[in-house]
Amino acid sequence: MLTMQDALARLTSYWTDQGCLVVQPMNTEVGAGTLNPATFLRVLGPEPWRVVYAEPSVRPDDSRYGENPNRLQTHTQLQVILKPDPGNPQELYLGSLAALGIDVAAHDVRFVEDNWASPALGAWGLGWEVWLDGLEITQFTYFQQAGGINLDPVSVEITYGIERIIMALQDKNHFKDIAYGPGISYGEVFGQTEYEMSRYYLDDADVAANRQLLDLYAAEAQRLIDAGLPVPAHTYVLKCSQAFNVLDARGAVSTADRAREFARMRRLAGEVAKLWVARRDELGHPLGRVEPPALARPVSTPAGKDGTRLLVFEIGTEELPPSECRAAQGAVERELRSGLAGTRLAHGDVRVFATPRRVVAVVTEVAAREDDHVRTVRGPKLAQAYGADGAPTKALEGFLRGQGATLDEVAEADFNGVRHVVLNRPETGGAAAEVLAPVLAKVVTGLRAAKNMRWRDPQLSYSRPIRWLMALWGDDVVPVTVGLLAAGRRTRVLRTAAAPEFEIASAETFMETLAFNGIVADPEDRRELIVTGAQDHVYPEGRVDVRGEAALIDQITYLVEAPTPLLGTFDESYLTLPDAVLTTVMRKHQRYLPVRDADGALLPMFVTVANGPVDVELVRNGNEAVLRARYEDAAFFYRADRSSAPAELRSRLERLTFTDKLGSMADRAGRISSLALALAADLELSSATLNRAAALVKFDQGSQLVTEMTSLAGLMARDYALHAGEPRAVAQAVYEAELPRNTGDDLPASLPGALLSLADRLDLVAGLAATVGLPTGSSDPFAVRRAVLGLLAVHRAHPALAGLSLTDALRRAAALQPVPVSGEVLAACAGFLAKRLEQTLTEEGNPIDRVRAVLPHADRPSVASNLLAQLASVTANPDFVAVAEAVQRARRIVPPSTPAGYDAGILKEPAEVALHSAVVAVAAELGPSPEPDLFRFTSVVSRLVAPLATFFDEVFVMADDAEIRAARLGLLATVRDLGAGLLDWPELQLR
Amino acid sequence: MLTMQDALARLTSYWTDQGCLVVQPMNTEVGAGTLNPATFLRVLGPEPWRVVYAEPSVRPDDSRYGENPNRLQTHTQLQVILKPDPGNPQELYLGSLAALGIDVAAHDVRFVEDNWASPALGAWGLGWEVWLDGLEITQFTYFQQAGGINLDPVSVEITYGIERIIMALQDKNHFKDIAYGPGISYGEVFGQTEYEMSRYYLDDADVAANRQLLDLYAAEAQRLIDAGLPVPAHTYVLKCSQAFNVLDARGAVSTADRAREFARMRRLAGEVAKLWVARRDELGHPLGRVEPPALARPVSTPAGKDGTRLLVFEIGTEELPPSECRAAQGAVERELRSGLAGTRLAHGDVRVFATPRRVVAVVTEVAAREDDHVRTVRGPKLAQAYGADGAPTKALEGFLRGQGATLDEVAEADFNGVRHVVLNRPETGGAAAEVLAPVLAKVVTGLRAAKNMRWRDPQLSYSRPIRWLMALWGDDVVPVTVGLLAAGRRTRVLRTAAAPEFEIASAETFMETLAFNGIVADPEDRRELIVTGAQDHVYPEGRVDVRGEAALIDQITYLVEAPTPLLGTFDESYLTLPDAVLTTVMRKHQRYLPVRDADGALLPMFVTVANGPVDVELVRNGNEAVLRARYEDAAFFYRADRSSAPAELRSRLERLTFTDKLGSMADRAGRISSLALALAADLELSSATLNRAAALVKFDQGSQLVTEMTSLAGLMARDYALHAGEPRAVAQAVYEAELPRNTGDDLPASLPGALLSLADRLDLVAGLAATVGLPTGSSDPFAVRRAVLGLLAVHRAHPALAGLSLTDALRRAAALQPVPVSGEVLAACAGFLAKRLEQTLTEEGNPIDRVRAVLPHADRPSVASNLLAQLASVTANPDFVAVAEAVQRARRIVPPSTPAGYDAGILKEPAEVALHSAVVAVAAELGPSPEPDLFRFTSVVSRLVAPLATFFDEVFVMADDAEIRAARLGLLATVRDLGAGLLDWPELQLR
Repeated sequence: MLTMQDALARLTSYWTDQGCLVVQPMNTEVGAGTLNPATFLRVLGPEPWRVVYAEPSVRPDDSRYGENPNRLQTHTQLQVILKPDPGNPQELYLGSLAALGIDVAAHDVRFVEDNWASPALGAWGLGWEVWLDGLEITQFTYFQQAGGINLDPVSVEITYGIERIIMALQDKNHFKDIAYGPGISYGEVFGQTEYEMSRYYLDDADVAANRQLLDLYAAEAQRLIDAGLPVPAHTYVLKCSQAFNVLDARGAVSTADRAREFARMRRLAGEVAKLWVARRDELGHPLGRVEPPALARPVSTPAGKDGTRLLVFEIGTEELPPSECRAAQGAVERELRSGLAGTRLAHGDVRVFATPRRVVAVVTEVAAREDDHVRTVRGPKLAQAYGADGAPTKALEGFLRGQGATLDEVAEADFNGVRHVVLNRPETGGAAAEVLAPVLAKVVTGLRAAKNMRWRDPQLSYSRPIRWLMALWGDDVVPVTVGLLAAGRRTRVLRTAAAPEFEIASAETFMETLAFNGIVADPEDRRELIVTGAQDHVYPEGRVDVRGEAALIDQITYLVEAPTPLLGTFDESYLTLPDAVLTTVMRKHQRYLPVRDADGALLPMFVTVANGPVDVELVRNGNEAVLRARYEDAAFFYRADRSSAPAELRSRLERLTFTDKLGSMADRAGRISSLALALAADLELSSATLNRAAALVKFDQGSQLVTEMTSLAGLMARDYALHAGEPRAVAQAVYEAELPRNTGDDLPASLPGALLSLADRLDLVAGLAATVGLPTGSSDPFAVRRAVLGLLAVHRAHPALAGLSLTDALRRAAALQPVPVSGEVLAACAGFLAKRLEQTLTEEGNPIDRVRAVLPHADRPSVASNLLAQLASVTANPDFVAVAEAVQRARRIVPPSTPAGYDAGILKEPAEVALHSAVVAVAAELGPSPEPDLFRFTSVVSRLVAPLATFFDEVFVMADDAEIRAARLGLLATVRDLGAGLLDWPELQLR
Repeated sequence: MLTMQDALARLTSYWTDQGCLVVQPMNTEVGAGTLNPATFLRVLGPEPWRVVYAEPSVRPDDSRYGENPNRLQTHTQLQVILKPDPGNPQELYLGSLAALGIDVAAHDVRFVEDNWASPALGAWGLGWEVWLDGLEITQFTYFQQAGGINLDPVSVEITYGIERIIMALQDKNHFKDIAYGPGISYGEVFGQTEYEMSRYYLDDADVAANRQLLDLYAAEAQRLIDAGLPVPAHTYVLKCSQAFNVLDARGAVSTADRAREFARMRRLAGEVAKLWVARRDELGHPLGRVEPPALARPVSTPAGKDGTRLLVFEIGTEELPPSECRAAQGAVERELRSGLAGTRLAHGDVRVFATPRRVVAVVTEVAAREDDHVRTVRGPKLAQAYGADGAPTKALEGFLRGQGATLDEVAEADFNGVRHVVLNRPETGGAAAEVLAPVLAKVVTGLRAAKNMRWRDPQLSYSRPIRWLMALWGDDVVPVTVGLLAAGRRTRVLRTAAAPEFEIASAETFMETLAFNGIVADPEDRRELIVTGAQDHVYPEGRVDVRGEAALIDQITYLVEAPTPLLGTFDESYLTLPDAVLTTVMRKHQRYLPVRDADGALLPMFVTVANGPVDVELVRNGNEAVLRARYEDAAFFYRADRSSAPAELRSRLERLTFTDKLGSMADRAGRISSLALALAADLELSSATLNRAAALVKFDQGSQLVTEMTSLAGLMARDYALHAGEPRAVAQAVYEAELPRNTGDDLPASLPGALLSLADRLDLVAGLAATVGLPTGSSDPFAVRRAVLGLLAVHRAHPALAGLSLTDALRRAAALQPVPVSGEVLAACAGFLAKRLEQTLTEEGNPIDRVRAVLPHADRPSVASNLLAQLASVTANPDFVAVAEAVQRARRIVPPSTPAGYDAGILKEPAEVALHSAVVAVAAELGPSPEPDLFRFTSVVSRLVAPLATFFDEVFVMADDAEIRAARLGLLATVRDLGAGLLDWPELQLR
């Protein structure tokens, strides 16, 4: 059996064979190998660097007394830095797994999107988690920034989680059982340390002492920065970080502390990085500079051919994130179509396919060359081309000289109706390869993702590195070059294939070569394979909810290019865990499809989709072990959480930051609670259930399970509250406070739940609007849009809440914030709400005019929504239409400034007197501020229909007599205002 | 070329092949691999443990900004722990060197005594530095105690200094030039860190902050101890240690601090160790317990033989320290002779030889068996054996029953003149093997050293492990067993020999087998080989001062068993360094013999003596490189020291502890200065030279060179003072203050030098007597005996100091101490001085009676010494003899209580009157308290010779008349007292 120490030795040896130095772990506590100066400092600046080292990585917060099978206060990382990117780091990495004896062709090794960022270090990168049969064994990152400084060249950072790898290889369920060395287990070597250091971090570390240490370290770091010594300064930044982590594990970090300390560490780390760069400059870069790689040179253009052939263009990438993969498919198609349109090359269908490792464009019947044509070159206006003597002007002469043409070649043509002299130049169409090359190059350079990164290519920037281009028009290579890449006829198939690269003879054989190698290029086909494959594999009584899991299936479709669905099972005993826990683990963490029986109950099995022709038994076993470990973890958390009272869990919210300026989660929960109770009091909806639920709201965010899986918030609250003996209604309300979690989710059914849900969202909107601003464009990190949609939905769902003005409620929420919320901000919030309501109502299929007509009630969405429903019916009622038309007619006639009211004594005409009487009666019946009810309004106001018709027929409003005119306008203004506040009448289109 | 990282990998791999675990370095700063819990904690308790790990070892005090070629603030140790002692750790270690590609047969690999102790950790062990061609590359220790706890089983600790090994293997002169990895140097990887961390440790570390850290760490360690958590507590002890080291490097540790912090760390480390042991007990020793090895069983005794044969007995050891080796030779001989004497085995010569790895006893003509003899068993007295009836008494019957004898066997014999009944029992002598076995076993078990250690043998304890026994009487193995060892016929020759073990057929061939394998068993022969070899090798004009280097040659004799002298050279430029610096390095650090020209000037060469048939060129080169590095170091220090003013160096004495209770070296220098000035004032010897020299005294102890080589104290003071422009006399006085450094050394020539020298030694004696006590037995850690001998020598050398009473001076010195010095202590000091003086004078060849006679002047040794010289001459003077005899006669006659003085009027007899007159005249001439001068005394007092003779002839002193008797006795008492205070007359033996 490969022991852990052997594994470390083998990996180290493998990477030294790849030219890496070996250095020792940092001799002060670090949370990760990244913090070792051999990474953090060395990735900065232009010097090359390749290193491998082990790093015992201390995570005080992960202390579990050695009891949790998968979590340790200190685990062992093996860290590799390759600077610059060698161009094939994934392949090198797979070689390292092989060096460990892992048969990468038999296992399912996958690169799953993972973007890494350390705000405290001003560092980030893009890359993957590497999965071995579903187990995350490595973090693989293209390091983009450190200490706030852009990295050039970019480094590849590979971080192996040794304990996990070894547990998988040795088939162990507890880290203590790892064979560490011959005849000695990990537990035997490190068990006591794991226990005691956990005790220190969780229970016994002196908080006051560690606070002092933190300050001393920070001061020392600053002094050393001031002294121009980045190396010792960095050491003290690391010590800061450890002291902070100890305090955090001891639960001694307040929100204010956290924000301040992160800012301080970020600043210090940034200054250290700057200083290091400056020092290396001063020292003249002792390790030299990375030479920029030579740009690709195009292959020679093939000789001209005839006929039409298939064009295939493959952009080979490292594993794209699913969303980017899908986006690339569209973008490439658009860019290619528009590029082709810019040429005169005849072609047939354009189709684009995408897998995680390639975007393939296929264009049928691409002509061998563009059609010949005549190019018209515009010269001066005719009027200015010849003098009065008919001789060419200087302008014409200059034009001819510039074009190298003579006067006898000149013709004439109109441009925008103006006659110009022109030159008609016949041009031969370009050969396909020649014409296509720049078009295809532009497709590549045009690729952009939501988050872009750099690698060794000096010209490209994209979601993940682009590693090869294959471009064939029939048998010929299209000589595309971009950055370091020159397109050729080589493609790559699965990395684990016996022959991972192929020469493609002609475009026409390409897709079958891919298919032959198991690669399903078309996402539709892959999806189908996954869905049918999953269904085929599950036991007869089980089924995969294809519709319910659509989003997950879509994601999986873009995670594999050679889908191999396979079934795994887990121990039935885990079914005692809540359904949501089980499925969250499957979906979010593992991308496994849950399997249910006919009644929708979970079965102890799952479907995972491997990539390529793996050893199914091996991969199944691996994935089952991973899920077991995850469930074991969840069960551990679940038991631990259940053993804590809700009040105790809630007290932990003190330690969770909401935002820097808006305090802790405890602060937020307090505000939600206050607000919900206040709203209830206003609405006379107070209840014991609400009181209790408000006291508990969000308590489950203090639980371990929700900390691990935030999407379980609310669900676990209900579970734990019930377990703790809370009344069912309270437990339900605390759950419902989190609803709706997304569009289409359930809404709170109970009023206490609804009030808490509203209060939650009101607090979020008011606080964030005042601090980070309302969302604009696609950026909405706190999901304020979703919160507002929830707000509207909850309000609309509960008639009892109809009286609640959301703008009033927002004002109340604002008053509870720890920051001032200005009137402008509140107005912006109201506008934002109204806009969301308009959008929602429209999306529900309501005509936009009616939606807009009810928008004055946007702050009471249920009112607006109710009016909209009435509108659908009353607009078919002639009385309503007549009234509405009258109102609109009055509105058109009466200047907006004219107030309602008039001297009734002035009115003499029978028609106007009759209208006056009718209006007085109607107004009296409607009352001063009626509830918005179109049915009643219509029935009351319909009595004006006849008098109004007569009035408009018989009375000339704009009488010469100013008094009479004023009285008549006043009468009409009164009519106009009878419906004021009910609808935005002008918006309503009546026919 | 083997890079440093390859070397680490190879050693790690070698030791894992030997069953070692690999762990990571400690993730907090440590000064040595020993501090890693994988050593410090794991050596405790009964559990087995084998581990190898690299340890970046931080020594803030060794910071040199990366400028010094051999000294780094962080160097890399590779640490190996073998618990229990595997029985062959040296052989395993040599295997590791071979794994590095070192041809251990070609190189000179030696195990040179080195005893390790860390008072701050309560830890110690015995072992060696391992030398590779003169370079210390490894520390090899049998770990005996940690945290004040005795280790059982004992661990073997092997600590490689990787940078040094690699520098040697790569033939580099500066650590920065080490090839660390392929194409990258150590300097390129670590140069900046080395510089910046040096800056931190030497210049920029904040003292106040590190003080606070130290206290916080210590408090946290204590809290964790109280919480029963040894692992985190240990971490904090390590942090204490680092903070302390930082403060120390910053020059911020006062004497009081140092003493307090060491005590605190020792206490904490001790508590951690206790706690760890207790926890492991509680946990039931998860790694099991080391099984005690099985004791040896003797081989069967050979069949009886005849004749006489040679006996050889070899005790094979790991390398004994030279002093122990020499002592063992004597001890084995004594023990063997006395053991043989207790047998009846006839034998010839007994000779014993010793080398570092063996003690060999050779006894010629050992008889095959003891002579047969008759043993007489004594029974009851004859008188009590038979009753009146002649029948045996009960006593006789009991005796016979007890002996299983019958009455007819009874005989008679005298014991002390009393007749007893006896039984004469013929006994057959034992066979040689049988008789010798217990004798030889006792020789082994009787071995004891000044410092003894334990290894895996459950029964033995000695200076170093005893690994084999070879015992042959002729062809037969003598079946000796001791502990794990059973003697056999196998011996071991050089470990690097092609066949390192041999079977010896018969005792007679043993010595030639050794010789054949290059081993020179007889130290006399080795010495001769070394001396002649050295002389043969040096260049014609050079010579080795065999007499001057006798002590070193003696030491070398016991450092090698196959001496191979070889000549090395060094760069002439180093000859600009002081002679003492060069020779100190050669002798003390390297055991090289200096080579001088006919005028005694050093030549740029040296002789080293390798062990065994090495590759001379290789070993020469290696040793030359080592010396070069050492000289480079010394030159670095020398330059640095010279660039500091003496006053600045002196200020550094504040940081050097003299003893816990007696303050810093600066305190001590201050006391010496005050005392010297005060004594000078008393003696009217004050001078500007003395004043200045007193202000500087001991300043060179603050220099780097003296810190490195303490034996250069004084010499460097003179050099640096002259360089700083001090007057020659001042420089000389500061040098002379250190004289004499040992017996036979030069004495101060100048009075200022002499006064400072005296003051130095007086301060030492007074302070230590009051705190640690005067030396007893062999324990004299502060060399108080030597100081006293110096004191006496200096006093005697300077007539100007004759007036100085050392007891008075001691009283003055006592008054300056920071601790009270009682009258009793001072009296003890005076007694100690007198005893040393007696010893010295006797050793100079003076008759003991005369020495004792002058001892009343012990507190003015020059007086005593002067009187002694006079005695040598006056004792040949009949007058003196007559006077002395008269004085002694008077003393015999007169009771001691009788005072001098008498009523002269009572004296009537002419002889007594004449004597009276003469006495009066003589007393008048001598004066009341004459200077002690035997010549003058004799010439004056000789006038009494005749009157005394007459008096004794004619006067009967003990007259009946009481008055007359009293007067006569008074007269004689006056005579007696004429010489009082001059000599201790009764001690003087006149014939």
